[in-house]
Amino acid sequence: MPDASALLTDLYELSMLEAYAARGMTGSAVFELFFRRLPPERGFLLAAGLDQAVTFLEGMRFDAEDLAWLRDTGRFAPGFIDSLAGFRFTGDVDAVPEGTAVFADEPVLRVTAPLPEAQFVETRLLNIVHFQTVIASKAARMVLASGGRQLVDFGLRRAHGGEAGLFAARAAWLAGFDATATVLAGRRFGIPLMGTMAHAFVEAHDGETEAFLDFARTRPAGLCLLIDTYDTERGAARVAALAPRLAAEGIAIAAVRLDSGDLAYHARAVRGILDAAGCGAIRIFASGGLDEARIARLAGAPIDGFGIGTALTTASDAPALDCAYKLQAYAGRPRRKRSEGKATWPGAKQVWRRLAADGTILGDTVGLHDEPPTGTALLRPVMRAGRRVDPATADLAAARQRAAAALASLPPALRRLEPGTVPVTISPAIRALAAAADRAAAGEP
Amino acid sequence: MPDASALLTDLYELSMLEAYAARGMTGSAVFELFFRRLPPERGFLLAAGLDQAVTFLEGMRFDAEDLAWLRDTGRFAPGFIDSLAGFRFTGDVDAVPEGTAVFADEPVLRVTAPLPEAQFVETRLLNIVHFQTVIASKAARMVLASGGRQLVDFGLRRAHGGEAGLFAARAAWLAGFDATATVLAGRRFGIPLMGTMAHAFVEAHDGETEAFLDFARTRPAGLCLLIDTYDTERGAARVAALAPRLAAEGIAIAAVRLDSGDLAYHARAVRGILDAAGCGAIRIFASGGLDEARIARLAGAPIDGFGIGTALTTASDAPALDCAYKLQAYAGRPRRKRSEGKATWPGAKQVWRRLAADGTILGDTVGLHDEPPTGTALLRPVMRAGRRVDPATADLAAARQRAAAALASLPPALRRLEPGTVPVTISPAIRALAAAADRAAAGEP
Repeated sequence: MPDASALLTDLYELSMLEAYAARGMTGSAVFELFFRRLPPERGFLLAAGLDQAVTFLEGMRFDAEDLAWLRDTGRFAPGFIDSLAGFRFTGDVDAVPEGTAVFADEPVLRVTAPLPEAQFVETRLLNIVHFQTVIASKAARMVLASGGRQLVDFGLRRAHGGEAGLFAARAAWLAGFDATATVLAGRRFGIPLMGTMAHAFVEAHDGETEAFLDFARTRPAGLCLLIDTYDTERGAARVAALAPRLAAEGIAIAAVRLDSGDLAYHARAVRGILDAAGCGAIRIFASGGLDEARIARLAGAPIDGFGIGTALTTASDAPALDCAYKLQAYAGRPRRKRSEGKATWPGAKQVWRRLAADGTILGDTVGLHDEPPTGTALLRPVMRAGRRVDPATADLAAARQRAAAALASLPPALRRLEPGTVPVTISPAIRALAAAADRAAAGEP
Repeated sequence: MPDASALLTDLYELSMLEAYAARGMTGSAVFELFFRRLPPERGFLLAAGLDQAVTFLEGMRFDAEDLAWLRDTGRFAPGFIDSLAGFRFTGDVDAVPEGTAVFADEPVLRVTAPLPEAQFVETRLLNIVHFQTVIASKAARMVLASGGRQLVDFGLRRAHGGEAGLFAARAAWLAGFDATATVLAGRRFGIPLMGTMAHAFVEAHDGETEAFLDFARTRPAGLCLLIDTYDTERGAARVAALAPRLAAEGIAIAAVRLDSGDLAYHARAVRGILDAAGCGAIRIFASGGLDEARIARLAGAPIDGFGIGTALTTASDAPALDCAYKLQAYAGRPRRKRSEGKATWPGAKQVWRRLAADGTILGDTVGLHDEPPTGTALLRPVMRAGRRVDPATADLAAARQRAAAALASLPPALRRLEPGTVPVTISPAIRALAAAADRAAAGEP
């Protein structure tokens, strides 16, 4: 299982661990995880993945097989490998709750732990938090574009592996999706499930009507029939003809699905066919290459819900964000990299948010964690001494409510998915600390 | 573990399974997995993921917990759920070996099995084969652009979850990468590992020189020092000054890594500093936002190797391909969907490749599997009656050699990553079968 082995990491984490151990560098370190820049396609992000990050930190360990394999590689000193058997994360984590809107340069997760531990967890922490934030942020755009119409995750098949499919289903639901087709995500996260039928089901039957009847009689609950296998309007006419026959058997057709062609055109035609036959209660569900822009363009079409695959679960327009996990302090001293275009702000930080009277976000300030607050603090205690201290971090439904509130609090232009973002101010105290850190580094021999 | 549970699927697969069972539709079905269209950024694909696909098909089952959970959902009839306990894949698979170049509309994997089995495996098969093919195809472009310089996968942190990181490492190595930083990929797939050090390691020390010394003395093998934490050229000068001191201790500095700024500029400056100090043997390794276009532009820079992250493991310019798994025949009859823009060619198919005398691919023909061959057949028997019959499908090193041969066989323009692709002809027999299938469907009441 990928998420259980401590070997799911970069080789350099192990190398640095050995070097830190050899030198006795086990003082307290502060690392922060943040998104450096937002791409033009993203005016805001929705923080996600914290629950899995905490689970990883609590459970991270090297098992006997990992250690035996490491020994076999001959890459590390035997004494160091032995020491890994007891290696645990014993540190503190402060983080922005899942479902919170965040912006560039804002720490979303801060680790305070002995340097080897804080360093070692870098790769998998980024792997977990980055991906779910990528998906939640993309899903949120679809939620905003949907105008309240039903949104269902159909994207497991094109997700990047199994864990991606599961995490994407979770992140999408967190962001406001109504359901997922991924069964294991239903089992693992309690997300509502929704599914229809495939073209193959229709094709395997000798006729479309026969396929509809078979499916309806076996799977009558929430019945959604796929009508575009051969000809969408003819499919709709067959549904209209079947509806009274099925009603006589006590079966209601809940919806039809369109999956190809000009969805607006076909939705109008199908709506007309169904309504003319007295089937006004049958809803129209659409799928096939949808993203937030297409959903927005379908605002006027008689479509009641959308199944969204690839654009959701791969976040295809921005499948990665510029996310980093950087050392901000060690052994009581601020630390900072100054690499071109990648300089970081030193010190353990906090984010304060200022809201208008109606709850709209006005702007954020990133300051040192012990500065006087200038708004509502976003980072909260999550783990202390290696244990989860906030059980609410495991409450996905609460995170989903938080996401809904976050979307409602965005400036109107961001809710309309227009370009732009929220202003983030770096506090004077951080700038002063950076200058001091640079002077100290310049004094190096 | 995501890849072990049969619940890692779409709900509709279960729904259709129940409907097929209720109707006794267990005749033999042929499904094919293919890539419908190539995006402009891809002139060819490298098939990948078959080994994991076969492992999935051999091991796919519902465990007791899965079944108990399904019962609790109340979504399915108890008798149907009971029948799932013994549900196995018992069918045949023919597939294109991993590392083969493939093009649009070519079946890369064909499943022949009782309809419920062939249908049910759709989602996870696509999930596995699509992703690894996406990554192998992207990695192959980097291999072609690299001019033989070292390529290392650094992308676990931005990959879409843990399995994506592992599968991406595998697909990249298959396509010709030299190593990965992902330790678990080394353990699981035997891929060579490579790693350096992080900026945090340098920052945690009071000076860069001290950090280099600590790392060198603990981790002397294949030593690569990261020199851009504060100032790249100053870092290079420190390395040059340290080299004789470390040499006296028996430690050779193998390489330095640059991770920011204008890599061509800094590489030249660093090369000059190292050469002037008699350190001509120290190689220069570059990382930071690289993709095949940037690698190509760095052709003239004195860079010996590249660490590639996000663009590789998310295939950021084309993170998904138009991949489908479609019913082509059932109960001895060809089947075909005719949805707008998504029509499929019916029948169990084969791909024949024609090569020039020097081995360059001239073109492919997709024909019915029992037509007279018009070239070398690409699909080969992989599974029979649910068991792997070709042990070579588990030989990753052989797949890597095949990929190298495949890249060498591409038309020169494709090897230069110019727009275009290889012509794929659909045989007259398939076209005739499609017309016949359409006539049969038109006869439906």
